[in-house]
Amino acid sequence: MKRIAVDMDEVLADFSKELVDRVNEKYNLGITMNDLAGTPIQKLYPELADDMFEIVNTDSFFRSLPVIKDSQEVLKELAEHYEIVIATAAMLSPNSFVAKYDWLKKHFPFLNPNLFVFCGDKSTVKADYLIDDHIYQLNTFGDRGIMFTSPHNINEPYDLRMNNWQELRTYFLEKVNVKV
Amino acid sequence: MKRIAVDMDEVLADFSKELVDRVNEKYNLGITMNDLAGTPIQKLYPELADDMFEIVNTDSFFRSLPVIKDSQEVLKELAEHYEIVIATAAMLSPNSFVAKYDWLKKHFPFLNPNLFVFCGDKSTVKADYLIDDHIYQLNTFGDRGIMFTSPHNINEPYDLRMNNWQELRTYFLEKVNVKV
Repeated sequence: MKRIAVDMDEVLADFSKELVDRVNEKYNLGITMNDLAGTPIQKLYPELADDMFEIVNTDSFFRSLPVIKDSQEVLKELAEHYEIVIATAAMLSPNSFVAKYDWLKKHFPFLNPNLFVFCGDKSTVKADYLIDDHIYQLNTFGDRGIMFTSPHNINEPYDLRMNNWQELRTYFLEKVNVKV
Repeated sequence: MKRIAVDMDEVLADFSKELVDRVNEKYNLGITMNDLAGTPIQKLYPELADDMFEIVNTDSFFRSLPVIKDSQEVLKELAEHYEIVIATAAMLSPNSFVAKYDWLKKHFPFLNPNLFVFCGDKSTVKADYLIDDHIYQLNTFGDRGIMFTSPHNINEPYDLRMNNWQELRTYFLEKVNVKV
């Protein structure tokens, strides 16, 4: 059985939507998701970058993250044909560890926590595929990377890109000859 | 540069000594480290296994762990010749995440936290070598495993065993032709 490593933020959990909501609430900036097209919010408002890190590096932030559309259903289906590893970069925000773990257990109860990996650099993750929104993680990962579209990466060139979980479903089911 | 993955409990952190001390303090059992030879403490006192899990799955337990002899000096030296990944099974005791992270930062400040991996099953860890005290982790890891001697594993057969950090130092430095 081949193994798929799946990033958490922006792939399973809607990190940027929650951050925009919280920043808007605090500073009344009226940022929309369209404003983030091609630019991470931290670069859009560099003067708020430190404060955004404070907002993010909390237990409550990660507990509140909305689930990315279709990720639960598709991952459940893919788990019948692939071994699913969750590989999340957590070392920059250690206060999020438990919240991330609880969030995964809550929203993806069918996954095996023994295959959760909280890491930094994804060169440390062993899997056949990595689905991630960050070009640097895809580049450091040794095997087949798949860029998952997120507002910040829409202008990043990458040879294999998926825009949503339905595209991922088709891609991975076709590989194991399941009719889609 | 080759990469060495290093387990934390029983390899860098003296987990069993701390557990024995706490169990002795609570139950006045007078367990010695010799009593653990060949037997995990949980099997020695199965009626206390649940309570031991409660003792272990706390922030304070992991913060208190003594450092295994010579591990700091040797790892610092090895880090000049190898990429060092810390791979710790943390998914069974999520309350320990932050304490483990802080413990590593405190006692091994020269390591790169971006190469810390908190996982379950070490089949998810990509490295050339894994130093671990658990036979099941060594067996699930795909590449070269090295069993690090701990009271519980002294009777486990494994083809490559090291008894202390000085032996590891010699083994790894000789591989890169450094005079030991």
